[in-house]
Amino acid sequence: MPMTLAEKILAAHTNRSHVHPGELLEVPVDFCFGNDITAPIAIKAFRGTGAHKVFDPQRIALIPDHFTPNKDIASAIQVKMLRDFAKEFGIVHYFDVGRMGVEHALLPEMGLVLPGDVIIGADSHTCTYGALGAFATGVGSTDLAAAMITGTTWFKVPASMKLIYHGQLKPWVGGKDLILYTIGQIGVDGARYMAMEFTGPVIKRLPMSHRMTMANMAIEAGAKVGLIAPDDITRDYVQDRAQRPYRFFAPDADASYDVVHEWDVSALDPMVALPHLPENVKPVTELPSIAIDQVVIGSCTNGRLEDLREAALVLKGRKVHTSVRCLIIPATQRIYHDALKEGLIEIFLDAEAAVSTPTCGPCLGGHMGILAAGERAVATTNRNFVGRMGHPESEVYLSSPAVAAASAVLGRIAHPDEVR
Amino acid sequence: MPMTLAEKILAAHTNRSHVHPGELLEVPVDFCFGNDITAPIAIKAFRGTGAHKVFDPQRIALIPDHFTPNKDIASAIQVKMLRDFAKEFGIVHYFDVGRMGVEHALLPEMGLVLPGDVIIGADSHTCTYGALGAFATGVGSTDLAAAMITGTTWFKVPASMKLIYHGQLKPWVGGKDLILYTIGQIGVDGARYMAMEFTGPVIKRLPMSHRMTMANMAIEAGAKVGLIAPDDITRDYVQDRAQRPYRFFAPDADASYDVVHEWDVSALDPMVALPHLPENVKPVTELPSIAIDQVVIGSCTNGRLEDLREAALVLKGRKVHTSVRCLIIPATQRIYHDALKEGLIEIFLDAEAAVSTPTCGPCLGGHMGILAAGERAVATTNRNFVGRMGHPESEVYLSSPAVAAASAVLGRIAHPDEVR
Repeated sequence: MPMTLAEKILAAHTNRSHVHPGELLEVPVDFCFGNDITAPIAIKAFRGTGAHKVFDPQRIALIPDHFTPNKDIASAIQVKMLRDFAKEFGIVHYFDVGRMGVEHALLPEMGLVLPGDVIIGADSHTCTYGALGAFATGVGSTDLAAAMITGTTWFKVPASMKLIYHGQLKPWVGGKDLILYTIGQIGVDGARYMAMEFTGPVIKRLPMSHRMTMANMAIEAGAKVGLIAPDDITRDYVQDRAQRPYRFFAPDADASYDVVHEWDVSALDPMVALPHLPENVKPVTELPSIAIDQVVIGSCTNGRLEDLREAALVLKGRKVHTSVRCLIIPATQRIYHDALKEGLIEIFLDAEAAVSTPTCGPCLGGHMGILAAGERAVATTNRNFVGRMGHPESEVYLSSPAVAAASAVLGRIAHPDEVR
Repeated sequence: MPMTLAEKILAAHTNRSHVHPGELLEVPVDFCFGNDITAPIAIKAFRGTGAHKVFDPQRIALIPDHFTPNKDIASAIQVKMLRDFAKEFGIVHYFDVGRMGVEHALLPEMGLVLPGDVIIGADSHTCTYGALGAFATGVGSTDLAAAMITGTTWFKVPASMKLIYHGQLKPWVGGKDLILYTIGQIGVDGARYMAMEFTGPVIKRLPMSHRMTMANMAIEAGAKVGLIAPDDITRDYVQDRAQRPYRFFAPDADASYDVVHEWDVSALDPMVALPHLPENVKPVTELPSIAIDQVVIGSCTNGRLEDLREAALVLKGRKVHTSVRCLIIPATQRIYHDALKEGLIEIFLDAEAAVSTPTCGPCLGGHMGILAAGERAVATTNRNFVGRMGHPESEVYLSSPAVAAASAVLGRIAHPDEVR
């Protein structure tokens, strides 16, 4: 029987010839991880079971990325729990300040999450690795605790949704615009508990960083996973990074999908999600003049090197508007380093942007750029819920790095062409 | 009648031929400022008076440097008070994220605080500008409010203490070691409400950045001000920066000092202040092996370009010890930029140190590197009081950038020669 990409991966992991949407499966995980918010709860649950070892110390990561460098005593205590647990149980992949990164940028960069994997992470944006063709999804802390002991987890096999993108993208339009458009079309519950499969000629040409941005936000449409079938672009990305073998799965040509969407995106303009939902999207060209106070360029959604390059194209030789604080946060130490070598960091500092060490920070209202009442930010992050970046009366507008950078220069939400 | 340096400045500002220690004087201020912790209180007091304007919008600075980029909603609200006040009253020198710096590094760098000035700041380390030959001291927020309205403040004329340093400094010994040694000799209340006057051949040769480090910590001996008579080194520093005229004052040769200390510092080793007081100093050579968890290089005490160069000399080609988080925080955006151009930031990233945008942050336990219980940090900052950098059961050891960098590499408090 033909299977979708998600079904193929789950079937292979359970030695089944076929799996059906709705089935409950116990599945071995190739990798699991938590961060400084979720892992402490998992560690407490783990210790509560009396377990004496983890299933495989090479297949667990602990990444204190949310409130680090420690924003306060509470976060210092949380991080210390991770550090102590990693030491006690010999967990190799513990990443501290200075070797760190935002988990969903760091793990692919390190070659720790790979095509064909089943991956769970105690963080909702774990779906990012779907861009590599992995079945990767966020779980609660107690599910992580169980997986750290048993090396398995359970899933209900999701129904699949196929999303086919045709056409030629305009300049300044990329993965962020595609996923915002998609969420705008189907809504924040449009793919609830489904496997989104992004495909079509536009996806085939899309660079890996843009694919990751799309898969990252699958959860913002309610999806269980957001997948892209591996291809040469995937191989180019993983072949020099992979720390263990990996496997490419492809959906069967005649697989059946619960829902199919097909769009020609040739006319798509850069998109912005207005407060307070990611589905609340409009082309930047249709917005009135909206003055802003802050810009954030970074996060697991758009903090990769390619994102910084895009921002630098716009910011080069320009200054951030005097009424705007522009925060640029490379998603990993490696990205920071590479951006520096390429001259991007100098462009940002010359533009009077603040460049921080990697952290999730402002994306979730954690620290490093929190908004006061009445303040408005353009951010390359993934959520613009009420109070997401600070005060409940603040506002977040989601966009690509190019739109964020253009908005930083002009002090209002802007198309990149407006500053060129 | 002969006068000390502090007396000379106060007499000139009050058009008096002489001032006496103990006298109360109303004194015009050349410059005043506050930060995101202290200025909101000053602004409330200012507004409480019903004042409609400030005495001079060119002579006030508002610098949100302590909890910025905003660590939380409370700090976002504080900073917004500064921003709104600056806009309403036309205060030119408001410095936001991206144009920002730690106030005591930023104001001299900008040429806003100058030799011969009387300066008050609502921050205890305002005494830093004594290195330029300014009478500069920290005040409470209500004193700042009054000065913003009237352009004047009041002082009791301090008695003066002369500190004379002879000899040739060993390698790796500088201003931080001199001031730690001094505080070790006289105690944290050894200069209470006095004007410290740093002089002698060692001071005459000391670069400006080291002078600032010394003056910065005068308050840690309880002093009202810590002064160094302006000379060619001062002129070199200020002549291209000064945004208004300045004046060099010199103490009279036969001025009378309440206390005189005279030391030959040729044998001085790099010094470390152990928890929990800056007076609790020991040469690094006499310490047992003390394992550490964190290193902080930055702050108004040691976050200048010369400090980063010193740290880079030690860190170049080396890695931060795996058990240490090393945070390097250039004190201003300009310093960050210059350090990048010189290749220092690359050295730090290669060493696996985290490089942050300017902030006071961890120095005062604000954010960006807070310690958990039982953790130990070596910091180039100025205070190691109980809980200063986080949990009351954490510890802070104060040192120079070279000692801090060496400690980062070796994972224990170390002399720079140990890593070379």
